[in-house]
Amino acid sequence: MKREPKMLSVAIAGLGTVGAALVRQLRQHADLIASRAGQPIVIKAVCALAKPSRRQCDLSGIRWIADPRGLAALADVDVVVELMGGADGAALQLARSALANGKHLVTANKALIAKHGYELAKLAEKNGVQLSFEAAVAGGIPVVKTLREGFAGDKIDKVSGILNGTCNYILTRMREEKLSFAAALADAQKQGYAEADPAADIDGPDTANKLAILTALAFGVKPDLSSVRVEGIRRITPLDLRFAEELGYRVKLLGTARQTPQGIEQTVGPSLIPELSPLAGVSGTLNCIFINGRFVGPITLVGRGAGGEPTANAVTADIMDIARGERGFAFSSPASRLRPLKAGKTQPMRYYMRLQVQDRPGVVADIGKIMRDESLSFESLIQRGRSQMKSVPVIVTTHAGDADAMKRAAKKIAKLSTVTEFPCLMPMEDI
Amino acid sequence: MKREPKMLSVAIAGLGTVGAALVRQLRQHADLIASRAGQPIVIKAVCALAKPSRRQCDLSGIRWIADPRGLAALADVDVVVELMGGADGAALQLARSALANGKHLVTANKALIAKHGYELAKLAEKNGVQLSFEAAVAGGIPVVKTLREGFAGDKIDKVSGILNGTCNYILTRMREEKLSFAAALADAQKQGYAEADPAADIDGPDTANKLAILTALAFGVKPDLSSVRVEGIRRITPLDLRFAEELGYRVKLLGTARQTPQGIEQTVGPSLIPELSPLAGVSGTLNCIFINGRFVGPITLVGRGAGGEPTANAVTADIMDIARGERGFAFSSPASRLRPLKAGKTQPMRYYMRLQVQDRPGVVADIGKIMRDESLSFESLIQRGRSQMKSVPVIVTTHAGDADAMKRAAKKIAKLSTVTEFPCLMPMEDI
Repeated sequence: MKREPKMLSVAIAGLGTVGAALVRQLRQHADLIASRAGQPIVIKAVCALAKPSRRQCDLSGIRWIADPRGLAALADVDVVVELMGGADGAALQLARSALANGKHLVTANKALIAKHGYELAKLAEKNGVQLSFEAAVAGGIPVVKTLREGFAGDKIDKVSGILNGTCNYILTRMREEKLSFAAALADAQKQGYAEADPAADIDGPDTANKLAILTALAFGVKPDLSSVRVEGIRRITPLDLRFAEELGYRVKLLGTARQTPQGIEQTVGPSLIPELSPLAGVSGTLNCIFINGRFVGPITLVGRGAGGEPTANAVTADIMDIARGERGFAFSSPASRLRPLKAGKTQPMRYYMRLQVQDRPGVVADIGKIMRDESLSFESLIQRGRSQMKSVPVIVTTHAGDADAMKRAAKKIAKLSTVTEFPCLMPMEDI
Repeated sequence: MKREPKMLSVAIAGLGTVGAALVRQLRQHADLIASRAGQPIVIKAVCALAKPSRRQCDLSGIRWIADPRGLAALADVDVVVELMGGADGAALQLARSALANGKHLVTANKALIAKHGYELAKLAEKNGVQLSFEAAVAGGIPVVKTLREGFAGDKIDKVSGILNGTCNYILTRMREEKLSFAAALADAQKQGYAEADPAADIDGPDTANKLAILTALAFGVKPDLSSVRVEGIRRITPLDLRFAEELGYRVKLLGTARQTPQGIEQTVGPSLIPELSPLAGVSGTLNCIFINGRFVGPITLVGRGAGGEPTANAVTADIMDIARGERGFAFSSPASRLRPLKAGKTQPMRYYMRLQVQDRPGVVADIGKIMRDESLSFESLIQRGRSQMKSVPVIVTTHAGDADAMKRAAKKIAKLSTVTEFPCLMPMEDI
């Protein structure tokens, strides 16, 4: 009996930008990939809502399967690549059945992994196959590999990153061109960086999904989306970016997980970071991740966090790892060792707060009283401009104070008759 | 017969800062490591010139072997960790015999890998064991893994980095404190960042070793130290750092490998990089690496490039990969597929040149003639200050020109009677 030459067979569900780029990469770099992976990697079947054009990718010789559920059942497929998206529905169904059928699963689906990653990791281990998701966080940046393998022997105390290119693009445009949030968002939509419904990006859930995955990898816990405190960037104005700059800071939407004495704190929200921080210069649609480990110290990774080709490269790397016999655990540790996340109390932070006030005697006294009642102390208070007619901005920075106290203070301040809009509140991260 | 529980046994040669930190990490994080690696990692034997103090690391229960050659012969050892250093001698002997005896080899020895990496990779493959050297380049930054696994399916066209913390510290101090090179070097020596004989750092060979390894990983070629063009930082003055800054640049010692139409160009030398580059903000002893791939695009990794703990973490990651059954090739591709490096012609670059001239009529005409004769064209020429007595600096920046022509021009200019010292010449990198 003639033995078939060794090769790894792949089926791909979803042929959008990432799927099409993946087909291109696996075909254009086939020789390189075969040499480095130790065996050829061959696409056997694909499945998508619509056929991509010939220009997007060449599907000749590849089976077209109508129903994604069919991919998990193909006897001659070793690896199923899920690029459909969505936390549940068809993606979850495919992931479950692929793993149950003893096929490795590679996915770029952050929502799926953040929500069902623990269940899928258990299923993968039970069936002796890999669950890999490098592409689910920060596209081309190999942060999953870095945490899962590079820092596997270290204890991490902080992971923080600019994980959403859309928000970073909007904030960059607002700062550089003095655009309003609405104008910068419209521009991002025009450029194809933001969806028609931009909520998933600008209100933070996309960042929260990615953060939940990084937290699980870094701290050895089950992904826990529900304990992420999430805030978006809608309330930021060009004024805030200018004042931040005057203070020596930049505004970024950060996702941060840190070990605190009580547990692990996960937050997503706009933050001020020092302009000398390696994260401050990360502009446009770029992503970056900062990691601090007990042995390795601080590390920063910067690169393209989205787009077909960088994301496809991450998928390709996962598939090649499988071809070389990689047998790591999905979340660094075996699923049975992943602890439930014990949410930490928010650490005291310094805060930036912009108020819009009517320029009348007594305003500062009222604000000062509210702050004092919440045991918060001023680091600085600057009123900009004078006007009897319009409100003027007052910029407050605080010494390290409790997050909940700070939020309560902001709410009370908002109710003052001299304050004309809800304060813009952001923590100042020392990163 | 009772079967011994599965574990991975390690022997360590060399207990300096890195070796001692490695013992600490493997012992302090033993549970974490066992869980993530799938089996305990146990130090069976060590060997060093001198016993570290109890404070540095706890060696209780570990065999002490007098001769490093003995480590390669221990029947109960799976992995030999070489931390002795040196391109040849005892390190090479140990590496060869460990691999020949079927033991995995993990090393932090850049000189060994740059010089003998190809031979050792072949030997490892022949014996079915791993050769791993994450710690040999940029300490805690997982750049070997990133190139070998993360970007294994991509075609890289450029790798460039700040790979020597000593030089980066000296250049940072010179810029920030306006120190002379000699004063900054003395400070680096006092801080323990530079050796008594600093040549390996400041004249570039250390960077060249690391670059040769990165080049092999990125481009699929045998490491080729001999084709690296190397220049150090001795000739840089605080004046150059100031002029660079006025031009919107920073001066960094870069190691750069790039694909050119003729072959692969490898250079080490001080370079001007734009102040907005992600590399420009990398100061002090930090290292960083920039990689550009066809699919993944540009990626920058920043972190601690030296020091016991970051480097130990890289060694630990390599050992854990072996424990998990990692079976990748030392230089991404099988040794049989590594091509000999075809050295590229240096790409045309823009140049910065500082001249010290006597302020007499005709100086610029003389310089202009030399440049014209070498087909080099000025982008700018600025004379700073006027003095009949002392020489004054003239700063020239050029349009993209040939490196050899530029060097010839500098030599001719140095011979002009009005020029008082050898010109300081640096390429301007668009990175």
